[in-house]
Amino acid sequence: MQKASTKEKNYLRDGFYARTPGEEIKCPDVYLTVNQFIEDVTARVNAAVPKDASADEASKARSKVIAEIEKESRDQTGLSSKVRTFWEGGAYHLYRGKSFTDVRLVFAPEYQITQYGGDPDNFEYPRYDFDICFFRVYESNQPVKVKDFLKFSPVDTREGDLVFISGHPTDTSRSLTVADLALQRKTISFALGFNNQKEVLLVNWSARSEENARRAMTDLYSCQNERKLADARFAGLLDPELMAAKAKAEADFKARLAGKPEFAEALAAYDKIEAHDKSAWTQYQHRQLIVGSGFDCASIGIARYLLVVPPNSEPLPKFPDPRYKEFERALFADNPIYPDFEILKLANSLTCMVGQLGLEDPLVQKILAGKSPHERAAELINGTQVRDLAFRKRLYEGGTSAVAAANDPLIEVARLVDAESRALSKISDSQDEMMNQAKAAIDHAKFALDGTEGYPDASFSLRLAFGTVKGYEEDGHPVPAATSFAGLYDRAKEMKNRPPFDLPPLWTKRKSHLNLNTPYNSVSTCDMGMGNSGSPVVNRAGEFVGIIFDTNLQALPWDYVFNDKQGRAVEVESVAIYEALDKIYQAKPLVRELVNGQRN
Amino acid sequence: MQKASTKEKNYLRDGFYARTPGEEIKCPDVYLTVNQFIEDVTARVNAAVPKDASADEASKARSKVIAEIEKESRDQTGLSSKVRTFWEGGAYHLYRGKSFTDVRLVFAPEYQITQYGGDPDNFEYPRYDFDICFFRVYESNQPVKVKDFLKFSPVDTREGDLVFISGHPTDTSRSLTVADLALQRKTISFALGFNNQKEVLLVNWSARSEENARRAMTDLYSCQNERKLADARFAGLLDPELMAAKAKAEADFKARLAGKPEFAEALAAYDKIEAHDKSAWTQYQHRQLIVGSGFDCASIGIARYLLVVPPNSEPLPKFPDPRYKEFERALFADNPIYPDFEILKLANSLTCMVGQLGLEDPLVQKILAGKSPHERAAELINGTQVRDLAFRKRLYEGGTSAVAAANDPLIEVARLVDAESRALSKISDSQDEMMNQAKAAIDHAKFALDGTEGYPDASFSLRLAFGTVKGYEEDGHPVPAATSFAGLYDRAKEMKNRPPFDLPPLWTKRKSHLNLNTPYNSVSTCDMGMGNSGSPVVNRAGEFVGIIFDTNLQALPWDYVFNDKQGRAVEVESVAIYEALDKIYQAKPLVRELVNGQRN
Repeated sequence: MQKASTKEKNYLRDGFYARTPGEEIKCPDVYLTVNQFIEDVTARVNAAVPKDASADEASKARSKVIAEIEKESRDQTGLSSKVRTFWEGGAYHLYRGKSFTDVRLVFAPEYQITQYGGDPDNFEYPRYDFDICFFRVYESNQPVKVKDFLKFSPVDTREGDLVFISGHPTDTSRSLTVADLALQRKTISFALGFNNQKEVLLVNWSARSEENARRAMTDLYSCQNERKLADARFAGLLDPELMAAKAKAEADFKARLAGKPEFAEALAAYDKIEAHDKSAWTQYQHRQLIVGSGFDCASIGIARYLLVVPPNSEPLPKFPDPRYKEFERALFADNPIYPDFEILKLANSLTCMVGQLGLEDPLVQKILAGKSPHERAAELINGTQVRDLAFRKRLYEGGTSAVAAANDPLIEVARLVDAESRALSKISDSQDEMMNQAKAAIDHAKFALDGTEGYPDASFSLRLAFGTVKGYEEDGHPVPAATSFAGLYDRAKEMKNRPPFDLPPLWTKRKSHLNLNTPYNSVSTCDMGMGNSGSPVVNRAGEFVGIIFDTNLQALPWDYVFNDKQGRAVEVESVAIYEALDKIYQAKPLVRELVNGQRN
Repeated sequence: MQKASTKEKNYLRDGFYARTPGEEIKCPDVYLTVNQFIEDVTARVNAAVPKDASADEASKARSKVIAEIEKESRDQTGLSSKVRTFWEGGAYHLYRGKSFTDVRLVFAPEYQITQYGGDPDNFEYPRYDFDICFFRVYESNQPVKVKDFLKFSPVDTREGDLVFISGHPTDTSRSLTVADLALQRKTISFALGFNNQKEVLLVNWSARSEENARRAMTDLYSCQNERKLADARFAGLLDPELMAAKAKAEADFKARLAGKPEFAEALAAYDKIEAHDKSAWTQYQHRQLIVGSGFDCASIGIARYLLVVPPNSEPLPKFPDPRYKEFERALFADNPIYPDFEILKLANSLTCMVGQLGLEDPLVQKILAGKSPHERAAELINGTQVRDLAFRKRLYEGGTSAVAAANDPLIEVARLVDAESRALSKISDSQDEMMNQAKAAIDHAKFALDGTEGYPDASFSLRLAFGTVKGYEEDGHPVPAATSFAGLYDRAKEMKNRPPFDLPPLWTKRKSHLNLNTPYNSVSTCDMGMGNSGSPVVNRAGEFVGIIFDTNLQALPWDYVFNDKQGRAVEVESVAIYEALDKIYQAKPLVRELVNGQRN
């Protein structure tokens, strides 16, 4: 919507509705892939790997046969084909999907109502977001005729209803061991400390001028979102019930492995992981500071690219050649960079780094060069030329010798850090390999004992979940399963319609048209994760009754283990979609099409 | 002003000016003490302490003779008399002061202009605050006639002018050793982490409802102020220049002590302090969590008082008997306590505590009782009766047995913590005593070698400082010494007159009357500290040219060492006082009195 907007038409602010097919907006960078077929190819993959192969040989043989399977499938069917790995190689499935690239926008509400309540209400419940839109998919310039589809239900769900969601959750960390979770607690707490420090800094700096606020906005949003995620996951890791459940499951499983020679490696893997996790902390911390949190500004990112992107520079390990298409794009992106904001962020992140490593650290001494973090940040940002695009192009073309000759203070700091970071990467690579092998041994044992009884960590693969529409209790008060339009208007009134609690004009103007008792957002116990936003919610009859857009805070620890005491998936009810399309947006043809399958 | 305000007259919002003496407001809880005389009583104090006395005996003998000196002085002069200790007993001075208790308010501006820019501009410079007020002091219902006073100068200071300030800075930490500063870095970083976590929590919670914002306001202000202080001091501790200066001064001093038997104890003290500081960290952290940061809510404070205040309960060490007048007042203060806010703060602080100590910690296990920090906080706050004043009174009257029989969940948690806290106090008391002795040995050596060449740490005693009116450089940009009224109006315009950058109505209405080029706030290199707010700034001619109200951020590390590269004291210029009283407040009689010494 942002891309389709112009100076005259601000779709993001005003929303969009194509009253006729001709008004629909083509979305060139949107495509849809519909899964057609899943085939178990485990036997073929395993057969291609010689029994006595080394880890390295096995990995190569596996990649080779997977590439063959994918190519055969593409050649035979013309469908996009991808082999996905589960249980660290316990199973391999071939996914075939049909892709549609002609996708057109039919309807989208005002951006403000899609994320009503902004950061303050993000991940909170009760919620009041109309976070939906409608696309139409075309093939050969004609709307695609779909045989199998989810019938739209204009009837609301009720407390206790069984519901299903399907989607592609990106990743979960449920196979983390108890030792991993202890390490996770430290790493999250560490990252949260930096994030909090940055958030208060940005809030304060933003309050000092409107231009500051504009410059800091994106960084601040990202801090706020990170903080909610980290806070909620940290809370999970401090929940004795969650941790006891993880400990019990691990102890039970280890008991099943004990005394069986075929699982000796898996049992030993737990000890290896624990030993690694106990020793990994200091190194993790050091790496985080050097590679990430210690240098939080755009200029040093560019300086770092200038060390690795020019054609004759030393490549970074683990990146393919022809390399760095993305890095190159980033190097030449002409985004505005504000020196004052850069100094603020670099001074803050250097302060965090120096605070952790201490002034006595030899690398810190080189980085600071006798100055305080703030003075040094000002000196580096004021002294560097990397914000100048022509300078970057000249250095890129001149290669490493031009970069060295530039004698740019920020590039020289990047060089110090680059050397340290490569050294740390080498240590971490060999440890990662050890950890991967240990995790694979455990996963193989799990698969050998339980097969597909449980489900593996999410990894973008298609997944069906089930649950119940259900409220919960919080701090001794009941939280009902559904909100209503009346609740939305109450929230706006309570917050005096001030951003981010302001209603779009149409929602104010046509309030009286709405049935205010219509269920709006609701929650269910469906096990979901990041990536399920947009998943359809389906009832027992197989009808579409809503669309997922969030979880509450209490579901964020689902990353570690599912628990439906308070954790909930949050959806927009189909009945709310129906009512708002009809009464607020007066999109009658769309409403008819949803319910009857035709516009008129 | 808050106390004198009524429903009809909001002096805090509107300011106050007594056009006639009869309109002046009596301030019953304000008194002024004017120092009359300082006498060196070191010899008499030292003579009273036997040479071979133990530390405990010496301390008692010293307290006795000091009490005698003070009583004699009071009896002889009728003046308030107080012996102050410098250099840990290197010198003792008797201060005699005349107290005036009939203090009346003559003029105060609108609160908003006294702290213009609120938290965002707090400790920042350039500044635009009219942070002044006028009292008149009476004796026998007549204005006091003062012979010696500072003549008011209606002429501004200029860059480079020599200026003086006198006042009572509360405390500094300049005698901290290098080892102490390393420990300080850890403790500040630790406290800052908690403060940041709380600040983002409160900002977020406040954004969710206006009532939340109202409830959290005081806590949030306090977080913001703490953060600025801690950030700036932490920055000082990470400044290689500051730390190198401290290290050099310490090394130089130790070199002067070396090989001299009379200073062997002082030299050894450095090692004792370093050994203590290195081992003190874990214990400090534990103590902080248990005694303070881990239980951040009003209810548990009350619960703790209920364990120690009732007449037959076990007294806290270090508190005098008849004890706890303040605790009693706190116990029976009927301030509003909001359960939701209490749960929020307790859950957050328990989370911080459990995150630091770990779920495995035996005390944590008892405190959480198998619940998550949030669940446990809700259970405790919802389950306790301590918010009920009648309940508190009943328990107080019933004494320890009634407290035990109450079976209140929060009191039981307080009991767990009380026991731990007493145990920690015992360890810490003996360590404090060791540290005090070590510090005294160093201070005595300093005094023996340098006498009154240097000056001791601030301790509320009267102190005269000097400096220069002088701008500075920040991030490569010059910051001029003075702002002007024009700058105030520019700032308001830039910030669209939105709080906390809104101008009081009179300042908008009478802008055109003002000479906008009038210097408003200005900075000097006078060495000041907390407690110097309100100090007069005096020029070479002995005239009053301004009044101190703040420092900039860069002066906050003056707590550790003075450095005038960027650190500055901030004052309101006398010429701005003159101009605004005349043009904005049209307080002609007051203006005439300031300049001519009479109202008409």
